[in-house]
Amino acid sequence: MTDSTTNMRLKLPITCFILEIILIILFGVLVQYDHETDSREWHKSNHSDYENDFYYRYPSFQDVHVMIFIGFGFLMTFLQRYGFSSVGFNFLIAAFALQWATLMQGFFHGMHGGKIHIGVESMINADFCTGSVLISFGAVLGKTSPVQLLIMAMFEVTLFAVNEFILLSILGTKDAGGSMTIHTFGAYFGLMVTRILYRPNLDKSKHRNSSVYHSDMFAMIGTIYLWMFWPSFNSAITAHGDDQHRTALNTYYSLAACTLSTYAMSSLTAHDGKLDMVHIQNAALAGGVAAGTAGEMMLTPFGSMIVGFLAGIISVLGFKYLSPILEEKLKIQDTCGVHNLHGMPGILGAIVGAVTAAVATTDVYGDGMKDVFPMIADGGKASYQGGIQAISLAVTLGIALLGGLIVGFILKLPIFGQPPDTICFEDSIYWEVPGEEASHEDQMTAVRTEETEKLNS
Amino acid sequence: MTDSTTNMRLKLPITCFILEIILIILFGVLVQYDHETDSREWHKSNHSDYENDFYYRYPSFQDVHVMIFIGFGFLMTFLQRYGFSSVGFNFLIAAFALQWATLMQGFFHGMHGGKIHIGVESMINADFCTGSVLISFGAVLGKTSPVQLLIMAMFEVTLFAVNEFILLSILGTKDAGGSMTIHTFGAYFGLMVTRILYRPNLDKSKHRNSSVYHSDMFAMIGTIYLWMFWPSFNSAITAHGDDQHRTALNTYYSLAACTLSTYAMSSLTAHDGKLDMVHIQNAALAGGVAAGTAGEMMLTPFGSMIVGFLAGIISVLGFKYLSPILEEKLKIQDTCGVHNLHGMPGILGAIVGAVTAAVATTDVYGDGMKDVFPMIADGGKASYQGGIQAISLAVTLGIALLGGLIVGFILKLPIFGQPPDTICFEDSIYWEVPGEEASHEDQMTAVRTEETEKLNS
Amino acid sequence: MTDSTTNMRLKLPITCFILEIILIILFGVLVQYDHETDSREWHKSNHSDYENDFYYRYPSFQDVHVMIFIGFGFLMTFLQRYGFSSVGFNFLIAAFALQWATLMQGFFHGMHGGKIHIGVESMINADFCTGSVLISFGAVLGKTSPVQLLIMAMFEVTLFAVNEFILLSILGTKDAGGSMTIHTFGAYFGLMVTRILYRPNLDKSKHRNSSVYHSDMFAMIGTIYLWMFWPSFNSAITAHGDDQHRTALNTYYSLAACTLSTYAMSSLTAHDGKLDMVHIQNAALAGGVAAGTAGEMMLTPFGSMIVGFLAGIISVLGFKYLSPILEEKLKIQDTCGVHNLHGMPGILGAIVGAVTAAVATTDVYGDGMKDVFPMIADGGKASYQGGIQAISLAVTLGIALLGGLIVGFILKLPIFGQPPDTICFEDSIYWEVPGEEASHEDQMTAVRTEETEKLNS
Repeated sequence: MTDSTTNMRLKLPITCFILEIILIILFGVLVQYDHETDSREWHKSNHSDYENDFYYRYPSFQDVHVMIFIGFGFLMTFLQRYGFSSVGFNFLIAAFALQWATLMQGFFHGMHGGKIHIGVESMINADFCTGSVLISFGAVLGKTSPVQLLIMAMFEVTLFAVNEFILLSILGTKDAGGSMTIHTFGAYFGLMVTRILYRPNLDKSKHRNSSVYHSDMFAMIGTIYLWMFWPSFNSAITAHGDDQHRTALNTYYSLAACTLSTYAMSSLTAHDGKLDMVHIQNAALAGGVAAGTAGEMMLTPFGSMIVGFLAGIISVLGFKYLSPILEEKLKIQDTCGVHNLHGMPGILGAIVGAVTAAVATTDVYGDGMKDVFPMIADGGKASYQGGIQAISLAVTLGIALLGGLIVGFILKLPIFGQPPDTICFEDSIYWEVPGEEASHEDQMTAVRTEETEKLNS
Repeated sequence: MTDSTTNMRLKLPITCFILEIILIILFGVLVQYDHETDSREWHKSNHSDYENDFYYRYPSFQDVHVMIFIGFGFLMTFLQRYGFSSVGFNFLIAAFALQWATLMQGFFHGMHGGKIHIGVESMINADFCTGSVLISFGAVLGKTSPVQLLIMAMFEVTLFAVNEFILLSILGTKDAGGSMTIHTFGAYFGLMVTRILYRPNLDKSKHRNSSVYHSDMFAMIGTIYLWMFWPSFNSAITAHGDDQHRTALNTYYSLAACTLSTYAMSSLTAHDGKLDMVHIQNAALAGGVAAGTAGEMMLTPFGSMIVGFLAGIISVLGFKYLSPILEEKLKIQDTCGVHNLHGMPGILGAIVGAVTAAVATTDVYGDGMKDVFPMIADGGKASYQGGIQAISLAVTLGIALLGGLIVGFILKLPIFGQPPDTICFEDSIYWEVPGEEASHEDQMTAVRTEETEKLNS
Repeated sequence: MTDSTTNMRLKLPITCFILEIILIILFGVLVQYDHETDSREWHKSNHSDYENDFYYRYPSFQDVHVMIFIGFGFLMTFLQRYGFSSVGFNFLIAAFALQWATLMQGFFHGMHGGKIHIGVESMINADFCTGSVLISFGAVLGKTSPVQLLIMAMFEVTLFAVNEFILLSILGTKDAGGSMTIHTFGAYFGLMVTRILYRPNLDKSKHRNSSVYHSDMFAMIGTIYLWMFWPSFNSAITAHGDDQHRTALNTYYSLAACTLSTYAMSSLTAHDGKLDMVHIQNAALAGGVAAGTAGEMMLTPFGSMIVGFLAGIISVLGFKYLSPILEEKLKIQDTCGVHNLHGMPGILGAIVGAVTAAVATTDVYGDGMKDVFPMIADGGKASYQGGIQAISLAVTLGIALLGGLIVGFILKLPIFGQPPDTICFEDSIYWEVPGEEASHEDQMTAVRTEETEKLNS
């Protein structure tokens, strides 16, 4: 028997159908192939096929795609009875968000003659925006209905596109891997939403808000995929050539250094030196977040490793000491600890980006300056670019917190079927959950009995 | 104790050895590197290395490869005691089928001076043909011995190559993502085989023909990988440049729309609004199947989303209402519901392809017409191409059903070691299955005891 | 309660911090972007962006990366209570080894004006070297502390770089996929280490040194990823164009043939014909190892399949008959059976490479000879190249065994916190392990009770 308020029988289908039909209509009216996906346009000009952007970016796109659907999806399966929801709701809201993001991002910076032009770069950007929504999902994991999540995604994608437009198009900020636009934004938006949705009696579901052995193994699939493909994430939309190459390299070393500091801190902060899966699953990724802004710059492998090293330390300390304080004092119930993986490392990444931009010189960048810092190549000062980067962090935090506040209150309306405090972190409220497996001994007995019967007959 | 008729001790090794030795001999006699993999040939002409087809297609090939071995393999692990067989037999028959497909496809459309020339495109085609066999495997899952599966693969690959030859080489059909050649063919072939192999007493194994919590989680790995890499699947062998790019884009949006309609329908058709993992694992993929033919055409994102949206609805309705009827009335025991994921969406994809072809104009395709519809570019009528596409669907259905009929009767011969009705969907009949894990409490007790003993000594 | 000698509270953090700080300092002093990752250098010359090596090698790099972190990591999760350690220690030592390998390999063959230049090729090489360490990890799996593993990695990477330098730079050996440098080296190094670390009382942990159903499923994720991406592994650093293309093709067919002989032998050597997961998880990969040296040569698909076919047979026979002898007679406790997967198939690969090199003719290779065998293209004899290949195998074995001997004795020092014989193959000694899941019935009862209470209130 399911509580009628959480019954999704009408709410979920209606929400999905309305959203998808609106999407289809808007795509019909507004969206066109760009000149690299359109048969006529591409063949008009005298290209070689290998100049099509598909070959520069599609492998990176697929890596990003894996991070969004497998990476985020499985990372959140650590809860003992929330695996279906973690990977299943991740799937649903990502499938919605990437369509909506195509429209919102296109509306703000992809219009050509009244039409939104799309291709592999817009697909990557849509996946990026989706990533931001999934970060926020991590903060409210286990405490929200799929309808709430879709509504949240709709608003968050819109605000993401606004913030991205202000940063990239108006201010001229550089943030290819999204330390600010994706991680900081997604984390603080989600933290504010979960603050507004504060549940004073959440400890009634406490026994389900933890992992079991196998759920931690599934979560490691998510972690490792995020870790492996982060170099592709940060380099997916940087300029062709040395920029993509360098960004991947920087991120690779940042993550490696981060992993060692994460293991060190996890062991150091445990009273008996035992490693904690929560740290390994999350903090080891902070090096990717922190290299999101400066990864495309001439950060050097040395600089990348320092950044990753610090990110791992900050992240473990956050899980160990800051999260309990946030929950007790600030009433922020952050299920996945997105503040430690995306929030603080995102801010670190933004600061590193501002500093690295501020010290950029033509001596170091040469003619590549126009790709990395077009404003500086056009005669602007590096310190001005650094200032822009710093301002962008403030703008991002402002929009994220204010947006999260408003959206949190919308989600609080008692019509979206959120679970009661007593049944959070539980799949069976929204999913048909199969029964337990007959034990192996029972099965083998059954098999033997059947075989004996057969032989006797 | 194992029933002697299902003992694979001699049957499986002999089958594998004979098949592999025949393959090796035929490869020795017939197969050569093509001009892009042969050291001498490639260096004869004045290429740049980046013009080698490897760089256009290998990333797509690897995505397809993941779909075949992880995607199909894990998708079928949903059964509670059939994980070893699902992923293990998938592995075996795929490894065989891709070799045999190289020969059969090469024989029909890859011969150059009496030799079969191979390279990355033939590898993709071999994987595609293998995919068709794995679809049929889904229909008979749990009810067949590995020897039966190898025999089935041998015949099915051959018939696949015949059908593919008729469509692509004789009729001039376009079907880059295989809505017809792969999905419709594999589904109806498998459905006919399982019809012939009908087991009236299969309900004796009913208790094993369902999932458990962890097996559904493993199956989601398969689902998500299939979903993510379907854009690569449909675009893997389209023409270079805008064609590959556009196909990936169309498939991406078709799948996203399909996911939303799948969730909507799954919740709507459940009496209490709860989502059903069977639908999520399967129907959400129907958008990829349905974009298999028209994906490379100027379907537009709008058209792609409508196709995906419909595919998801059809597929869930099939699982919910049609499959039980097929089983009761038509005696088709379709373990994985391939009719709903590959059969009906494949037909939908074929129809969409026929219609899209029939309305193709030079105004829309420009000079790209020669890549997408060479017959129309050469002066043929679009409506003729549309007609060809429709006829191709009929041909495919005919060959699949007739082929499945014959192969079904061959597999019925009581010499291949199929499992009895009482022990279907059970790994232990063909696999060494490990014992149960000692419970964690037992283990911890053991550890503590050992430690105490050690300290005392 | 944890034995104080295995408490990692200080040992692990200190080791990680010291190693990472040394790495960061050395990177700061020695490492620079190469001319394809450096903004200024790349823009100095008149390149097209698509000529950047990133686009030739990054997709292969990512496949290799997946093999290192998911492939090796999950392959070793087959033990029932060692999943956290398998994937977690794999993660830690790989993250360390790839940084250290960058320095060691750069020191021996990447110095330019006193600086180590890095880019995607050095990243692939660093991952390759890491793979060798992970092979050795397989031999000592379950019996070593993370500190021991880091120490082992440090020495092994160094010796790997020395051996690689002797083979590739001094002798002029060809070994693109590392049959010798990676697999033979890693296996025999690890076997010697585990021999020195011989534990006479290991049978006290025997009950944990086996798999359970779910752990075998997780291990299959590792197996399948290794299998699928091995074509990328062997082709990742071969010459551009036909070489990469041909290597991938050869490896693909070698693996397919190997899979069939593995299934045949697994069934044949079981007393009741049942397949053994140990064989499927491991021996089916031997075809990739055995094609590691000759894969880039004109081995032909026919030759590749014969090599793979034999590798599968040898590997299963090794697991079945040789491993027990090695353990009983030679006191080599090889947890993962790396001798059967990497050792013998590596030697086979080296021999195949030597023979294939010795019969190379300009008639077959044409102008491509300069890419595959520069020494022969410069007028050397093919038989001389063959001899060099054979000598390289002997050198590799010598350095691996001697190195393993010395490092084994270092690891034996009783200061690194290795587990006692009674608690090997057990996660809880180094990890916080979560409690058991409440059974589904308990949970459902709880949910129902809560709901009833709610309705009554």
